[in-house]
Amino acid sequence: MVDIREVGPRDGLQAEEPVPVADRVRLITALMDAGLRHIEVCSFVSPKAVPSMAGAAEVVAALERRPGVTFTALVPNVKGASMALEAGVDEVTVTISASPTYNEKNVRMTVDESLAQVGEICELAGAVPVDAVVSCAFGSPYEGDIPPDDVAGLGDRLLSAGATSLTYADTTGMGTPRRVRDLLDSTGASVGLHLHETRGTALVNAFTALEAGVQRFDTSIGGLGGSPFAAGAAGNLATEDLVHLLDDSGLETGVDLERLLAVSTLVADLVGHAVPSKVAEAGPRDTRAN
Amino acid sequence: MVDIREVGPRDGLQAEEPVPVADRVRLITALMDAGLRHIEVCSFVSPKAVPSMAGAAEVVAALERRPGVTFTALVPNVKGASMALEAGVDEVTVTISASPTYNEKNVRMTVDESLAQVGEICELAGAVPVDAVVSCAFGSPYEGDIPPDDVAGLGDRLLSAGATSLTYADTTGMGTPRRVRDLLDSTGASVGLHLHETRGTALVNAFTALEAGVQRFDTSIGGLGGSPFAAGAAGNLATEDLVHLLDDSGLETGVDLERLLAVSTLVADLVGHAVPSKVAEAGPRDTRAN
Repeated sequence: MVDIREVGPRDGLQAEEPVPVADRVRLITALMDAGLRHIEVCSFVSPKAVPSMAGAAEVVAALERRPGVTFTALVPNVKGASMALEAGVDEVTVTISASPTYNEKNVRMTVDESLAQVGEICELAGAVPVDAVVSCAFGSPYEGDIPPDDVAGLGDRLLSAGATSLTYADTTGMGTPRRVRDLLDSTGASVGLHLHETRGTALVNAFTALEAGVQRFDTSIGGLGGSPFAAGAAGNLATEDLVHLLDDSGLETGVDLERLLAVSTLVADLVGHAVPSKVAEAGPRDTRAN
Repeated sequence: MVDIREVGPRDGLQAEEPVPVADRVRLITALMDAGLRHIEVCSFVSPKAVPSMAGAAEVVAALERRPGVTFTALVPNVKGASMALEAGVDEVTVTISASPTYNEKNVRMTVDESLAQVGEICELAGAVPVDAVVSCAFGSPYEGDIPPDDVAGLGDRLLSAGATSLTYADTTGMGTPRRVRDLLDSTGASVGLHLHETRGTALVNAFTALEAGVQRFDTSIGGLGGSPFAAGAAGNLATEDLVHLLDDSGLETGVDLERLLAVSTLVADLVGHAVPSKVAEAGPRDTRAN
C-alpha cells in the first residue's frame, strides 16, 4: 500500500487566507472519511509569521482520533515541537534545506545550526517519530544542482541526529525523472518524496519514483500549496492526481477517489477559489460524456 | 533525435479567437527559428465551422520554405486534401476515431465511412505522406475503454488504406502510463503520440512512451489547444514542457529552449491570454532566484 501523506491542511492552506479552525477540522475529517490515514494537520509556527496556521493546538484538540490514522504537525523549532507534542500529535516534521542559501533565507540559520536544532527536537520528541523534510533536494534556485551524494549525506546526518525518516522535497520544481533516479541511487528508495508542480513534472517524477520502489509521497488536496517564502514554488502534487494514477496502475492507496473529489470541492469552497488539480477539474478517467 | 511535431499553429489556435494570417506566419517562423522541423501549420476546414483556421492557403503561401522543415496540414475530407495539396504542404494529417460514437459526433460519419474517405485522400495525395491520427485511442468518453487490439486493428486498416504513418491521440485525457504501455504492446513503438493535459498526465504518458521506444510526439506551443468539439478536452502537451524534460534527460530535439520560451511569450500575446505551459510560466529548471 502506497503511503500518501496528505499535507493540504498544512502546506496547502499555509499560503491561503486563514480558514477558521472549525472548517480546518471539517476538512481533515473529510480527508479521513475519504480514506487518508496520514495527514499533516497543522504547523506550530508563529501566527504572526503564518496567520493561516494560527490555532494549531485547537485543530489537534478538536480532531476525532481514529485507529490507524497518523496526525503530523510541522514544527519550525524546539518551542514549536514542544507545543506539538503537548497537543498530542503522532509525528512531527522538521525541515532543513540541501541548499545553504535557501536554508538561510528560509529560517535564518546555517544548515549546521538547523541540524543541531533537529537533534534537540528529536531528543524532545522521544518516542514520537520525527520526519525530516529536506528541501531543495533536486536543486536550488540559488546554488543550482546539488550533488545527490551531498543531499544523501545530509540525510545520513539527519538520521544520526535522531530523525526517524526522511522526505526529500522538490521545493521549487527542479526535479525531473533523471534527477529523481540520480537522487534515489544515492539515498535508496526507503524515503518519502514531496513533489511540486512548478514545471509540470510532479506526476512524472512520482511515477518514476514509484517504479524505483518509493512507497511514500506527500500530496495536497486540490494541489494547493507552495511555500510563501519560495518564489515560483507553485502547487504541490495534487492528492487526486496521484490517487487517480495509482488507481489506474492497480496500486492500493486505501483512498476512495469519488469521496476524495468531494473533498476537492470542499477545499475549493473553503479557500474561495478553484484548485489546480486537473482530476478535480475534469473528473476521473471513467467520467462519461452525455 | 526525437521528432516533435508542433501543432500549435493548428490545434493550438483552432479554439482561439482568429489570429490574422500574418501573425500566424510570424508564429510559425518563430517556431522554425527555435529549431522545430515538423509543424502542423493549418487545417483546410470550412472557415464557417472553424473561423480561426480561415486563410489556410494564404498561410502556406506566405511561409518561407527551409530545408529539412516539414509543413503539415490537417484535412477533414477530400476537398480539404485537394486544397492542401494545391497549396503545397509536405504532409497531410487526417483524423478518425477509435470511438464510433465520438467519430459520428465529430464528423457525422461511421468509422467505416471515415476509413473509406482516408483511402480516397491517400490516393489523391500520391507521394505526399498521409499521417492518420486516431482519436480516443486511450479511451472514449462515450464507450469507455477500448481494447488496445481494436485500436491497433484500426491502425492496420488505415495503413492498408494508404496512410504512411499513425499517430494515436489521447483526445480527452484518459491515457495513463498503464494505458500507454498496453496500447504500445499492441501497436509497437513506431507510432506517434498526441497527448492531452486533461488529467495532468501528458508528461508522464510521454515519458512512459519514450522509455518504451516512441520517438514521435505532437506538442503545442504554450500547451494551447483541445478540440472545440470535445467537452473537457483541455490543452495539448506543451512543447516547452516536453523539450524541457527531454533536455534534462539528455535527449536531442534540435530545439533551443530559450528561443522556444520567447515563442511562448509571442503566442500568449497573439491569443491575448496566458498559456497553460508550466515551463513557460516558471522558466527552465536552471532559472535562478535573485
